[in-house]
Amino acid sequence: MDEESTMWNFEGDEHLNKASACTIRSFLTTLKENLNQNDDRPVIPLGHGDPSGFPSFRTSQVAEDAIVDAVRSGKFNSYSPSLGILDARRAIAEYLSQDHQYDTSPEDVFVTVGARQAIDVLITVLARRGANILLPRPGYPLYEARAVFSHLEVRHFDLLPEKAWEIDLNGLEALADDKTVAMVLINPGNPCGNVYTHKHLQKIAETAKKLGIMIISDEAYGYLAFGSTPFVPMARFGSIVPVFTIGSISKRWMVPGWRLGWILMSDPNGVVQKHKITECIKSYLDISSDVSTITQGALTQILKKTPESFHSKTLNMLREAADLCHARLKEIPCITYPCRPQGSMFLMVKLNLLLLKDINDDVEFCIKLAREESIVVLPGAAVGLKNWLRITFAVELSSLEDGLERIKAFTLRHAKTK
Amino acid sequence: MDEESTMWNFEGDEHLNKASACTIRSFLTTLKENLNQNDDRPVIPLGHGDPSGFPSFRTSQVAEDAIVDAVRSGKFNSYSPSLGILDARRAIAEYLSQDHQYDTSPEDVFVTVGARQAIDVLITVLARRGANILLPRPGYPLYEARAVFSHLEVRHFDLLPEKAWEIDLNGLEALADDKTVAMVLINPGNPCGNVYTHKHLQKIAETAKKLGIMIISDEAYGYLAFGSTPFVPMARFGSIVPVFTIGSISKRWMVPGWRLGWILMSDPNGVVQKHKITECIKSYLDISSDVSTITQGALTQILKKTPESFHSKTLNMLREAADLCHARLKEIPCITYPCRPQGSMFLMVKLNLLLLKDINDDVEFCIKLAREESIVVLPGAAVGLKNWLRITFAVELSSLEDGLERIKAFTLRHAKTK
Repeated sequence: MDEESTMWNFEGDEHLNKASACTIRSFLTTLKENLNQNDDRPVIPLGHGDPSGFPSFRTSQVAEDAIVDAVRSGKFNSYSPSLGILDARRAIAEYLSQDHQYDTSPEDVFVTVGARQAIDVLITVLARRGANILLPRPGYPLYEARAVFSHLEVRHFDLLPEKAWEIDLNGLEALADDKTVAMVLINPGNPCGNVYTHKHLQKIAETAKKLGIMIISDEAYGYLAFGSTPFVPMARFGSIVPVFTIGSISKRWMVPGWRLGWILMSDPNGVVQKHKITECIKSYLDISSDVSTITQGALTQILKKTPESFHSKTLNMLREAADLCHARLKEIPCITYPCRPQGSMFLMVKLNLLLLKDINDDVEFCIKLAREESIVVLPGAAVGLKNWLRITFAVELSSLEDGLERIKAFTLRHAKTK
Repeated sequence: MDEESTMWNFEGDEHLNKASACTIRSFLTTLKENLNQNDDRPVIPLGHGDPSGFPSFRTSQVAEDAIVDAVRSGKFNSYSPSLGILDARRAIAEYLSQDHQYDTSPEDVFVTVGARQAIDVLITVLARRGANILLPRPGYPLYEARAVFSHLEVRHFDLLPEKAWEIDLNGLEALADDKTVAMVLINPGNPCGNVYTHKHLQKIAETAKKLGIMIISDEAYGYLAFGSTPFVPMARFGSIVPVFTIGSISKRWMVPGWRLGWILMSDPNGVVQKHKITECIKSYLDISSDVSTITQGALTQILKKTPESFHSKTLNMLREAADLCHARLKEIPCITYPCRPQGSMFLMVKLNLLLLKDINDDVEFCIKLAREESIVVLPGAAVGLKNWLRITFAVELSSLEDGLERIKAFTLRHAKTK
């Protein structure tokens, strides 16, 4: 093998490596490497988006039974159609139509390998020479990663902390041009824990219509709204502007490992159809990974038979955890936050570095916190907002309490003496 | 929404559409659309690569139990690491090491969403400006599709029917240049049903070494060898040249819907390591779809506990079916084939169009066969060999018998009168 051959110079793959470097996983890996192996206390994970490992957040019995039934039936061993099994697409369409003012057809649903593949599909299909996409800051970095990989230019609009993380629509308008293909919103918010009002969503739809761009509404945390603002699916505004909704059973059912998500196309006026985007999605799914037929086979039962009590228990746990964060974080001088979370599993808090003596930024804060207190918290840099932190509160309450105590002790130890 | 905006012109996505158009799925879809809805006889599917729907080919009890145990344990609901759960990687490494002369480490294994994602990963990582890859003709068209999508140039080398579908190594050498990154071989053969001898595999390895290219060995049908030539994994030659083996539980366990495959890197001399290809694979997996944790959780039990009797039953069924094809096809004048299949589930047969009166090529043959006899057979054009057919013999014996009868009747009806 000719080791000097230029063909073997794989180091040039900067797009791939740049794409991977900006994922949350790579930040969490770094933090975990910094944990102190000699600390006898349990590690408190407040950096993840996946509480499924905690006993309180175990998925519903209905979901487990549905998988067992699917596998025991012997009917779900064969290849899946590229777009998903028809019954699964129908179940998703029915699940999502409860909130719409028009019928949702199974034809408008594409089953995906979790929300991750939905992001992959939409970004790949929209990427074309010279185009750009508008992403929220802070946001979910997999969008950046896939856009970098697909050579799609990214422009960031701001979420406004002082306005409950609403989108800065003036700023967004100023960013868009005739090469802008779409904007992404994440609701309920990751990383901010906000839930957008009906009024704000309508304004977003009208702005997108004016700009001539599509909306990708990431509702991975759909229905996980425990505050005063109810969750409103963006698809409700599909008659104003075409909306691609991304969803999944990962968060509401606490089974991110099961890998079942979807794309819903809401386009009652047929705008997207005219532009053959659907054909592109189908073509790309034809050459992409399929979704496990076991989970697809279980899906109808999961979506239809899960008792309301399972969902309300989850919301109660999240509300209680959010309240605990509120009570404890206000005792920590160097940490402030603009508003109490109303949804998802996250809270964005701001660091006041002027009050700390030996910490220069959020990444250093998180690395030292991991090292000294065995806590994993995501630095804001990972989601586009330097010197903030993203705290996950979807953990057992006792762990959360312990974790918030440790964060307090850590900040006191590093506080500037006056 | 500005319908005239150039940004909305998604019709230009020729790469995506070209990539999708060359998949086996798109050919099978066309054939299925040509089936006669008024034919009361059952459709005989001889075009697929998935017998899992037939009662005789139901997966093993062990595999079903393993899924049930995994889901009931509650331990496999969380996100998977990008490279796969360590226990699953270890189980695959042990499963594959039985045949190697050196240890296989879990570090050398990447779990993928079936063999499809393994192809996606390797083609994406190898694609770079100006590079080319050598693919077999006939072959498996997903390689072409992913290469087209990734702008990787494809060059085809021939498989020689008169030499039991061995690779034309002289032809292969003539195709390679300093921009060639790898060659692909499929063993046991899809679509040819051949199984390569140890001697031929060694020659392939030596040729690849001389050319300075890597080998991708697609062993999706690994161990499905029922003839006189035993299956030899290409990884055994990893010390001659780096080998990436693609494998999966889809075919040997008849569960293609479960979506669990792998890439094994066999590179005892560390050649690949030096070129950072592993880093590229990891980076790409970081932003790609994960594998279902349920199936990963079940994998150790599936690979270790499946009784030998399950595998030998499968091989006996395939052998019997291949024998039946041999007995019946030799009675059909316009069909010849170079050698009896020894592995996988397929047989490539050649059409003698001179003996048919109103059929101009393989695609027309298959469309008329679907229309008149309710049989789906894949035209050779779909796998790169015009005027051949790929016949799947992994169906219930009675269906196969019925199907071969109908093919015979069809060819007699369309035979030229002398």
